[in-house]
Order: sequence, then C-alpha cells, then structure tokens
Amino acid sequence: MQAVGMVVEYNPFHNGHRYFLNQARQITGADVTVAVMSGNFTQRGEPTIVDKWARAKAALESGVDLVVELPVFYTVQPAHRFAAGALAILDALQVHRVAFGAEHPAWDFPALVAAEQRFNQAGFDQYNATYATQFNQQLWAQTGLELRDPNDILAFAYTKAVLANHYPIQLTPVQRQGSDYHDRTIHGRIASASAVRRAVAAGTEFFATVPPAMRTALAQVDQVPDWASLYPLLRNQLIQAPLGYLAATYQMAEGLEHRMKEVAQRSLTFDDFIHGVKTKRYTYAHLLRMCLYTTLQLSEEEVAARVDHPYIHILGFNKRGQEYLHQVKKMVPVPLFTKVSQGMRDGFYNLDYRAGKLYQHFTPVEQDLKHPPLMIR
Amino acid sequence: MQAVGMVVEYNPFHNGHRYFLNQARQITGADVTVAVMSGNFTQRGEPTIVDKWARAKAALESGVDLVVELPVFYTVQPAHRFAAGALAILDALQVHRVAFGAEHPAWDFPALVAAEQRFNQAGFDQYNATYATQFNQQLWAQTGLELRDPNDILAFAYTKAVLANHYPIQLTPVQRQGSDYHDRTIHGRIASASAVRRAVAAGTEFFATVPPAMRTALAQVDQVPDWASLYPLLRNQLIQAPLGYLAATYQMAEGLEHRMKEVAQRSLTFDDFIHGVKTKRYTYAHLLRMCLYTTLQLSEEEVAARVDHPYIHILGFNKRGQEYLHQVKKMVPVPLFTKVSQGMRDGFYNLDYRAGKLYQHFTPVEQDLKHPPLMIR
Repeated sequence: MQAVGMVVEYNPFHNGHRYFLNQARQITGADVTVAVMSGNFTQRGEPTIVDKWARAKAALESGVDLVVELPVFYTVQPAHRFAAGALAILDALQVHRVAFGAEHPAWDFPALVAAEQRFNQAGFDQYNATYATQFNQQLWAQTGLELRDPNDILAFAYTKAVLANHYPIQLTPVQRQGSDYHDRTIHGRIASASAVRRAVAAGTEFFATVPPAMRTALAQVDQVPDWASLYPLLRNQLIQAPLGYLAATYQMAEGLEHRMKEVAQRSLTFDDFIHGVKTKRYTYAHLLRMCLYTTLQLSEEEVAARVDHPYIHILGFNKRGQEYLHQVKKMVPVPLFTKVSQGMRDGFYNLDYRAGKLYQHFTPVEQDLKHPPLMIR
Repeated sequence: MQAVGMVVEYNPFHNGHRYFLNQARQITGADVTVAVMSGNFTQRGEPTIVDKWARAKAALESGVDLVVELPVFYTVQPAHRFAAGALAILDALQVHRVAFGAEHPAWDFPALVAAEQRFNQAGFDQYNATYATQFNQQLWAQTGLELRDPNDILAFAYTKAVLANHYPIQLTPVQRQGSDYHDRTIHGRIASASAVRRAVAAGTEFFATVPPAMRTALAQVDQVPDWASLYPLLRNQLIQAPLGYLAATYQMAEGLEHRMKEVAQRSLTFDDFIHGVKTKRYTYAHLLRMCLYTTLQLSEEEVAARVDHPYIHILGFNKRGQEYLHQVKKMVPVPLFTKVSQGMRDGFYNLDYRAGKLYQHFTPVEQDLKHPPLMIR
C-alpha cells in the first residue's frame, strides 16, 4: 500500500478539505491517506473550534484513512519548525508522498531554499521589523520572489525539511481551488475555515460547507474557544510568576517578559493586552504563540528535551488505515501508540497532556488519558 | 490621644462589629480606634465578599477612626502567625491597648502560653491528625483546657505574641455577645458575618444587619467571590507548573504538591478538588491557604524575605484618625504610606499587589497602584 500524507489543522474540517483529499488521492494514485493533524491548538497558538477528537472523526468519516496528532512542540511554531515536525512524523510513518495546497505550484522551491543559504545575517538586524519581513527582503534581492501567501511559506518549509533531512518524500503541490483563505463570508458549499468559524461564532448558516459529522460537533459549540476566555489564566501567570521564571519561557527574548507582565497588570481584557504588547518587531501569530507557551509554562529546557524525539499518537483510523498501520508499524522508528498511559502522561507526552487540560477550559471531555482511538468502519 | 486597636476582617462589616467597636472604646476609654484589617483575602485564604476599600469605607462610616491593611503574608496564616503579624502592625502604630472578642475572657491565657513551652515535640508525630488536634491533646493533658473556639485560639495567639515580643500592649478581651459565629441564619439586627454572606449569596434579606455603606456595596454583589470561581487559575497552575516549582511553594510539605497536582488533573470543579485533596492530616482552612499560596506562586523564599519587615498601608481615616497619624508618624519604625507607588508595587508591596490583581477576577477596580486613601469627615 502506498500512502499520501497531508499536514492539516481541520479547524474545522470542511468541504474544501474533502475536495483536496480526493485530489491528493487521484494525483498521487495512493491507496491510503494519512493526515497529521494539529491537536487542540493551532499553529498560531489559538484553541481550535472543536477538540481534536471531533475534528479527527469528521476527517475519518469523510474518507481520511488514518489521523495522527502533531505534538504541540511541533504545531505551535513558525512555519519552518511546524513543517519540519510534521514531515518527521510522516517520514516515521513511512509516507513517501506528501500533498499540500499551493498558490504557486510551478515555483522552483529548491532554488529558493538554496537562495536562503546565501542570506546575510546582517540582514536580520532590524528591531522594528518582523523576521518574515526581513526574510522576504533578502529573498527578493536574491530571486525576485517573495513568500507572502501562507501556502507558499509552507511549500518552502516542506522543501527545506525534505532537503535538510534527505527524506525519501516526494512533495506534491496541488493548485488551490475555491474559496480564498482570507474570504470572510460563505457563498456556496466551499468556504474557508475562518469563514466557517466566523459563521459559527455569529450564529449564521454554515451547514452547507461542512460534512455531517462536523455539523453535529459545530452545532454544539456554545461559545467559540478563544484567547479572550483563556486570558484570566495567562494574566494570572504573567502577574504571579517571577520575571526570572517568565524569562525561561520558550522563545522569550529581548525582554519581552517585562513588557508582557507590565501590560497584563493593567489590562483587564485580552484585546487590551494583545494590542498593548504588539510592536512592529513581532507578528500577532508570534505573540499568540508566546501567550500559549506562557500559559503552558513551556520552558526552553522542556522543548530542547523533546523536540528531537517525535512520537506518534494515533487519533483514529478506518479499515484501510488499520491495514496500513499493520504494514508499517515494525518500521516506525519512534513510539507509536493509541492510548496515553499514566506513564506517558507524566513522561514524554506531558506537554500534549497539559495542552489538553488547558483545552478542558472549553469542554469537560478528558482529551488524552486512556482515551481510546476512533475506529470507523 | 490614646488608641485602642482591633484586628478585623469585616467580611462584611455588620452591626455586631459596630457594637463591638463601641464596647472597645467604652471599656478602654480610648480616644481613637484603629483597625488592622485583612485585605482582599481572609485568614482562611478565601476572597472577601467585597473588596478592602468597600469594607474600610463601611468601617470608617460606622465610627472606626483609622483602617490599615494587614499584609497578605500575615493575614493568610494560622492563628499564631496572623495574631503576631497584626500585633506587630499595631505596636508599630504605637497602639497600647488591643481589644478582641473572647469566649472565655476569664481564662488565664498567660498560663496556657506557659504550658505550651512544656509541650513534647513527640506529641506532634501523628500524620493522620491535624496540628490543632495534637496541640489540644497536649494542652488538655497539661491544663484541663482546650482551645476550640476561634476566639479562644486568637486570644491565646495574641497573648503569646505580646509575651514573646515584650510589646507594651494591654490585651482587653471583651465578652462576645449576640449571634454565634456558626449561626447560619439571620434573626434580628445582629447576625454573624457568615450568615450575612450566606444571605447575600442566596439573595435573601440582610439589610437590617449591616450599616448603610455596606448595604450599598453588598447590593452590588452579583456573585459572591469564592474559590469555585478562582479554581481555573489554581487548576492551571497545578497542572502546568513542574512539581519542583510547586514544591517550593510556601508551606508545601510532605509531598502535598503531588497530591494537589494529581487531584487537579482529574477534577473539573473546586468542590471535587478540595474533597479529593482533604485528608485527616490537614484542615480545610490549611488547604484553602495552600490553594491561595499556590495561585499567588508564593514561595518560602519570598515569605522569608518579607515576614520580618512589616509595613503599614493606610486604607482610610477620619479627622480623628488623621490627627492620631500626625501624633505618631514620627515614632512609627516601619514604612507607613497611603499610596502604592510603582516602586512599592515591584518591591516590598508586590505580594499584596498580586493578591489585589487576583481579586480583580471579581472587580474591575484597581486595588492598589496609586489608589488614594479613603478620607471621611
């Protein structure tokens, strides 16, 4: 059996995802589809609209054969680390084709990766500009291209990860169709994930855009999970923890802990907080990730201990996915498991467990401990 | 001017407190009344029903001349540390008479304090009994008396603090009148503070039991502040913080951090949590204090650095209180201030500031920074 892998958030799973799934299967001729999916928090550090189990269920019922979880320390990361983590998981699962939506599938991404090798470190010394802006300035100077679209940024990151690790993975960009990422409203059966989330939040119609399993889950969403709800936890951490402890947070740099503490002390709402903290130096995505790292008390030390040791938490599968697992499991060089034991909870899986506990702010459902995998006929 | 001091929580201020105030003034013949009052958390570690400003205001409008705040590291403590801290403040304020409600004013408390000196350390080795139980076993053996009533326990603690520190303070026990501490319902104009709190929570009548300023404040209480509301903050801290960090919490001993983390992971409500943590070893009051220490991330180190350095935060005064302050201020050997500056916030006052920020869970009112004192004509 040949597999095609996909790196997904499914936040929520919608018709566009189903369309892409079928395209990926057709183009690659794969027998089985494997999705490595963000857990309960997205790459941007935000809680997902429904939990990972509801999203995995909708994916399986829509034809994905196997869904595994992307660990938090790979998910909540800038594109290059996110992509590298996801490909490490897919490579371990013996997946040799990876399909992804692309804005410019014809671009020569290996050439862009090569161009980055020639970047000048001095080109990253502007403290009033984001890393991405300075990256694009240099890329433009070298190649006449810029990575603006999120899909292009990920395509670049996948290419870089494959080349750097010599993965036996063939990357398959698929021209994006239908609704744009940034589309704010729903028209027709294909809508962007953010348009669907907005409709759920506003209580407007979205049923046509998602498959039945997702309809059921989204219909139960009372209040869309967001940082406004988690802010009391973040605020208390920023106020109560000593500066030295906050400074040890993963990616905390340039004295940002002082700014975050100061602004938290005077901000009663998340909106006031995030606008108070924002500078030209950092993107909102970076700051949202810092909010999550801080709330999870994630330290540089903890990430360093985990990041080179992937593991694979299987969220669910159908018959074909199960057969594939049987075929590859002896070749998978990392821990592969369907149930989180107490030992895993207190050991290598602890960060994902803690993220699941934080997500319990939005649901009483235990996210991990002894949770059985989904099995779909 | 001669002052009489009182150690109070005023949670809320009610007619019984006013009655006691007048008695204290009459019995001692004092010209001025000074209350050292718990801030936004009580001795038991619970948030007060309204904030310290509303409680101080009601006290001043009912005839207390000067209200100062008892710092958190003195307030949220077992009786002996609570009493010692309060008397340190009153002594610094040159108060030489202290009045307090007593169940058994005729008992020879100095003799009981002397008896404690003869206690056997081996009498405190039962791990399935609270400290208080073992204390009373020894006291009974030596004197035939037990300290059961909260007023007796405090009377003992005041006596011990005066003797140990050679304070020039005359203790004046006042026989308690009217409603019992443990009375659960309101009948008449005198009710216990807990009965008033219960009436506010239940939305039943309490107006007759409190003076006008307290009526106004209590009428605005939508939901009575409690640990159920703060539990998400406590739970997140117990789940996210490493065990080693939790172990450094003030008073965390005998591996309690393991138990608290384990129970927090599985408990979605504070009720489940506190019952899951309770053992014969610890009283609920002790565990509630541990909850507060944990949520404030209060370390042994921080308490050690602060506990021997009292300071006096003046919450409010009337004309007589102001005159008294003028009379004594040159003799007060510790910092005495009416407004919390940014330097104090980040320095010696930081723990009280953090407690105030935690209390902001219940009110948008800034509790400390640059808050002016109350001045009543």
